[in-house]
Amino acid sequence: MNNFRHELIRSEVLEFKPYSSGLGIDEIKDKYGLNQVIKMASNENPLGVSPSVQEVIRKNASLAFRYPTPGNQELCGAIGRYLDIDPRRIVCGNGSDEIIDLLLRVTAEPGISNIAAFKPCFSIYQLQSRLCGLEFRQSPLGSEFSFDWNGLLGLVDEQTRIVFLTNPDNPSGFAVPSREIEKFYSKLPESTILVIDEAYIDFASPVEQYSSLKLALKTERVVVLRTFSKMFGLAGLRLGFGVFPMFLADYIRRVRLPFSVNILAEKAGLAALEDLIFRQTTLDLILRGRDYLGDELSAMGCRVYPSQANFIMFRPLEDAEMIFEKLLTRGIIIRPLKSYGLQNFLRVSIGNDQENRTFVTSLKAILSEQSAFDHNN
Amino acid sequence: MNNFRHELIRSEVLEFKPYSSGLGIDEIKDKYGLNQVIKMASNENPLGVSPSVQEVIRKNASLAFRYPTPGNQELCGAIGRYLDIDPRRIVCGNGSDEIIDLLLRVTAEPGISNIAAFKPCFSIYQLQSRLCGLEFRQSPLGSEFSFDWNGLLGLVDEQTRIVFLTNPDNPSGFAVPSREIEKFYSKLPESTILVIDEAYIDFASPVEQYSSLKLALKTERVVVLRTFSKMFGLAGLRLGFGVFPMFLADYIRRVRLPFSVNILAEKAGLAALEDLIFRQTTLDLILRGRDYLGDELSAMGCRVYPSQANFIMFRPLEDAEMIFEKLLTRGIIIRPLKSYGLQNFLRVSIGNDQENRTFVTSLKAILSEQSAFDHNN
Repeated sequence: MNNFRHELIRSEVLEFKPYSSGLGIDEIKDKYGLNQVIKMASNENPLGVSPSVQEVIRKNASLAFRYPTPGNQELCGAIGRYLDIDPRRIVCGNGSDEIIDLLLRVTAEPGISNIAAFKPCFSIYQLQSRLCGLEFRQSPLGSEFSFDWNGLLGLVDEQTRIVFLTNPDNPSGFAVPSREIEKFYSKLPESTILVIDEAYIDFASPVEQYSSLKLALKTERVVVLRTFSKMFGLAGLRLGFGVFPMFLADYIRRVRLPFSVNILAEKAGLAALEDLIFRQTTLDLILRGRDYLGDELSAMGCRVYPSQANFIMFRPLEDAEMIFEKLLTRGIIIRPLKSYGLQNFLRVSIGNDQENRTFVTSLKAILSEQSAFDHNN
Repeated sequence: MNNFRHELIRSEVLEFKPYSSGLGIDEIKDKYGLNQVIKMASNENPLGVSPSVQEVIRKNASLAFRYPTPGNQELCGAIGRYLDIDPRRIVCGNGSDEIIDLLLRVTAEPGISNIAAFKPCFSIYQLQSRLCGLEFRQSPLGSEFSFDWNGLLGLVDEQTRIVFLTNPDNPSGFAVPSREIEKFYSKLPESTILVIDEAYIDFASPVEQYSSLKLALKTERVVVLRTFSKMFGLAGLRLGFGVFPMFLADYIRRVRLPFSVNILAEKAGLAALEDLIFRQTTLDLILRGRDYLGDELSAMGCRVYPSQANFIMFRPLEDAEMIFEKLLTRGIIIRPLKSYGLQNFLRVSIGNDQENRTFVTSLKAILSEQSAFDHNN
């Protein structure tokens, strides 16, 4: 790579690391000579796409030459009915990633404002803050990955424009009831917006106790982010949304690229909201799988962290990297948490029943091989 | 809308106008009691989506629960083969809108750099510049909507980070041979990047004479933008890309949101690149329709501007707004150019043969009604 044009790149951007992509399913098949690969790495819906949504995508394939509708009014209306909130509070984005970026661009002053979050947290909060020229502050999670509110509050000053929370949290699965968040919100300065990323909230139970949607409706500076990528099975179509205070929704809409939500995401999102049975089946599967995997991992001596999400974080007795690699050779992809700064931790997405059993059987085999090896050395 | 939280909104953003959406096809049907509406307003492909691409979308509907591949390597590879360029120079985006935004964010210094373009130009150049806190400079187009190079050059100084050109231009349809662009580029400071938006280049002939792809490959600071929205019939799926100098492609990739291109856009884009017959049929249709509409509009006394794109700009003898409205009541949507500052101009996208005839018949009827009315008053 030539260096001679670096003066054309903003200094904030020069600090971004080169892009590196992990192996995809097909590449892993090739590399290890496998016919089948199970992906339990990205917290996707183990049931795939709802059959009724697939049907809607197929039916609308011929519409892909049309520009989408700029304001996604129909979709915002349907989301409003689903959540029982005024649709003018809702803005959809090309995944909630876009909404996070827009929140920063609309509210935070480059070189002046700062942004706060726990450590570790979703990488996009930090990356987009840096791209926006904003100081990004982090305070470590508490013991057992709980939320150390005082630590987080200690970062906040009058220039803190946004505090990001993920609830349930990723990668730990830890969640707090919304009343704890409300208490924290009450201590924030008037100039700070609290953003609660509820990507995994559909898997928390009881959801009413954990979700901060009601808090968003009764306060002035709370934003709730949701996604169609997990429970709704639409990660590939990129559809997320925020529930905003009215004034903020208005400005987010003003600056959003008009066609950022693609036309099939809009159609699929509408259909996915209608399909209650798919969501109930997904939830049953996730709750059952979460219990099963939690029990089995504990029985294997792994430290298992309680999860309110569609994944489980655990700490094996053996080396996490070795386990990840050995699972790969058996065609199972899970998520090592090195990039979160959690060297010895692994995260496994809840799969379908068959996938969960295959994962457990494979992990048992790997651990017993390893313990025989350790014993003989 | 409450005003009391405006101190939470960046001053640049407070200047953005409230979002307002035009009527969609279904709303126009309802409003005017129509069964059919012809849309010739957004320069979409009059043949719709290629049948082979529709088939690929249907086949991959079940994949919509998977996250897309972060780097779009396969798609960049296919585009590279299609254009005969190194795929490492290519970055795909959620429409070329995203690429325009990324170019500004990666290279231009908020509060310091400025951006230059002709006036009128594609609104996104200006909107994203303002959102990035950049001064946006414009110099008027020359006579007959030609490119007044000296005027544009007069805006440029050492702090001009990007000059945007659209070739063929929108909404005029005017185009310049690439050698003229090369001459202009040679006069730019070393610190200025020239971005040539070739959204409509596939309709220019001969394309080799107009496209600046070769210029991009042999220079250090030329970027060419392309889209799958027009010739490739995929406006709704949002797929654009840029051809960059290598160093710039690398940094654009570093900051791009990893999943901004959705999974069906990627699959459909790959299939669209394969479908030569669809593109040739589209081109034949557009060239035939452009000649036909140009002749008919001239015969009706409209001033017609020569176009190298899939639309025609014209200036009717009667009031443009009145014609636009009367066409709407007959179920034909075209584009008034008021928002471009061109009060008395209209733009019509080339439709299929039937649509073009219906448009001509309706416009004739409107003009003769009006001339009878004028005559009697």
